[in-house]
Amino acid sequence: MRIKESVMRLEPYVPGEQPKAKDVVKLNTNENPYPPSPKCAEVLAGFDLDRRRRYPDPEFAALREEIARQNTTTPDRVFVGNGSDEVLALAARAFVEDDEKIGSLDPSYSLYKTLAAIRDVEWRGFGKDRTGKAASGKVSLFLWTNPNAPTGEFAEPKAIAAFARKFPGVVIVDEAYADFARANCMSLATAPRNRNVIVMRTFSKSYSLAGLRVGYCVGPADLIDALYKVKDSYNVDAVAQSVALAALKDRAYHRKTVAKVVKTRKAFAKALEKRGWDVIPSESNFVFAKPPAPATAADVFAMLKSKNIFVRYFPGPLTGDRLRITIGTDSQMKTLLDAL
Amino acid sequence: MRIKESVMRLEPYVPGEQPKAKDVVKLNTNENPYPPSPKCAEVLAGFDLDRRRRYPDPEFAALREEIARQNTTTPDRVFVGNGSDEVLALAARAFVEDDEKIGSLDPSYSLYKTLAAIRDVEWRGFGKDRTGKAASGKVSLFLWTNPNAPTGEFAEPKAIAAFARKFPGVVIVDEAYADFARANCMSLATAPRNRNVIVMRTFSKSYSLAGLRVGYCVGPADLIDALYKVKDSYNVDAVAQSVALAALKDRAYHRKTVAKVVKTRKAFAKALEKRGWDVIPSESNFVFAKPPAPATAADVFAMLKSKNIFVRYFPGPLTGDRLRITIGTDSQMKTLLDAL
Repeated sequence: MRIKESVMRLEPYVPGEQPKAKDVVKLNTNENPYPPSPKCAEVLAGFDLDRRRRYPDPEFAALREEIARQNTTTPDRVFVGNGSDEVLALAARAFVEDDEKIGSLDPSYSLYKTLAAIRDVEWRGFGKDRTGKAASGKVSLFLWTNPNAPTGEFAEPKAIAAFARKFPGVVIVDEAYADFARANCMSLATAPRNRNVIVMRTFSKSYSLAGLRVGYCVGPADLIDALYKVKDSYNVDAVAQSVALAALKDRAYHRKTVAKVVKTRKAFAKALEKRGWDVIPSESNFVFAKPPAPATAADVFAMLKSKNIFVRYFPGPLTGDRLRITIGTDSQMKTLLDAL
Repeated sequence: MRIKESVMRLEPYVPGEQPKAKDVVKLNTNENPYPPSPKCAEVLAGFDLDRRRRYPDPEFAALREEIARQNTTTPDRVFVGNGSDEVLALAARAFVEDDEKIGSLDPSYSLYKTLAAIRDVEWRGFGKDRTGKAASGKVSLFLWTNPNAPTGEFAEPKAIAAFARKFPGVVIVDEAYADFARANCMSLATAPRNRNVIVMRTFSKSYSLAGLRVGYCVGPADLIDALYKVKDSYNVDAVAQSVALAALKDRAYHRKTVAKVVKTRKAFAKALEKRGWDVIPSESNFVFAKPPAPATAADVFAMLKSKNIFVRYFPGPLTGDRLRITIGTDSQMKTLLDAL
């Protein structure tokens, strides 16, 4: 008694470092280098005192309706979480029996493995060409990050659709980075005949609201209902609901910010290649790149950190030869290139 | 596959109604009738755009340190959640094996039962004089609300301490309403020899920040560590962390608000008694009271609702003869009394 056995054994997920100093170049956790829409600051400054005193709308009606509207679907197919992290944790509770497994691409977002450990079920990773194997073997929830992290690779929606048709459980397409990609899977989620595909988005990347914790997903109404059943009563706070709504409505600003990041990504990838790096073609707001020998990823990571430039290094056989570098402003990328 | 069996069967928790009309007298979800400290509005209006772009501090260091300071303990004994609801959900994952049970007083906060159902374990309720029974029978987490809801009753800390000494699992004293009571159990949680008592507080009641979703708990460092292990990476957003810190620091405002609510509670309880109601002595920001015959609680609830006055009615053998009425402003209580 006291602490659950599986929790005693659990190795917690380690989020990327959030250095407190102000003068660092922070390219390690895929945040947006540009501020959120100015409409967000307006909403925040004008936020009614009385609305904080009261509980927030437990069903985030206004935000949900706007998400439905922008994706040409109905609000009963939309769920909102305290960041997509919460959506994932709830999905692990709603869609996985105690003797079933959670699957994902490998390498992929390292949180998935921890999520399975917290849920006390097995996790299985699949190389991108071996995802079909997940359909056998008691995997009941498959988390497909697209574009993938940390690689930045993009899978065609039709490939994911084909996978989902054969997969007996629930497929969550984690589209945290999809706004930076050439296409996305939303039409799979909104299709009336869709039985098992949920598309998940976040306000943390393209909307620059990582600090506020809002993620959402779209999928079949019965799966969405199941998420509502297992969530905390008031899981998204009133300020976050209002600010996210303002960000969502300012579509012109969003488009402009995304375009700037994509442009910088293309130029930065070219510049790295010119310096002999191997860069995986990226459809996200980061690149996953291998420095030219004899430098190792670990060396370059340490060297950059000593200069107050933070990128992400994932040790391990599948990821340890590369660095994941978030796309910042042109000037931040120049600082990094100069340091190399 | 697809939806977990236990989730299919789950009856979701129904939070109190959050009517959208502006002209209602809302005394149904125990919110504070007074606004949060003016320092909160200052923090919100001056919130740095750049801090929202980035992920929040995953360990809420500043808030945790202030909580530790005010409770004369160390930050390693403090955990912060997205409302106490999240703290409870995490505790159910961290402190309960699949074949163990969650216990609580009965009647008590109706969420506990749902929480056990979401965790897919059994819930057992105990009358206040029968809590000793929980020590046998595989209850590994006991949630003791003090003052209790919906009754408002207060248990002496020494009674809870005696219970905890004999209880093999973890006791969470849910002190959502303790700021309105004559004493609390915090010294049990901070005692160096404490092995199994966690005291939980919220910013939703006495601090008037229900809209922001911040709760915290204090307890033995190994139990607190277990909560960190099972939480989402960034569970409390940056705005909520800053605003809660401002509310916590404005102790004079907090004391003043609490004193006003307590004064109104005393006067309102007397006024109800004068009208023939049976009122359970309350140490919280609500009263649980029985109307004089032949009126039933259900009748009075419906009558008040028709006049746009919202109170809470919990049907059922233990609670169905009373109404839970949140303490509002003096003028709101007068409106209610006039309607009666």
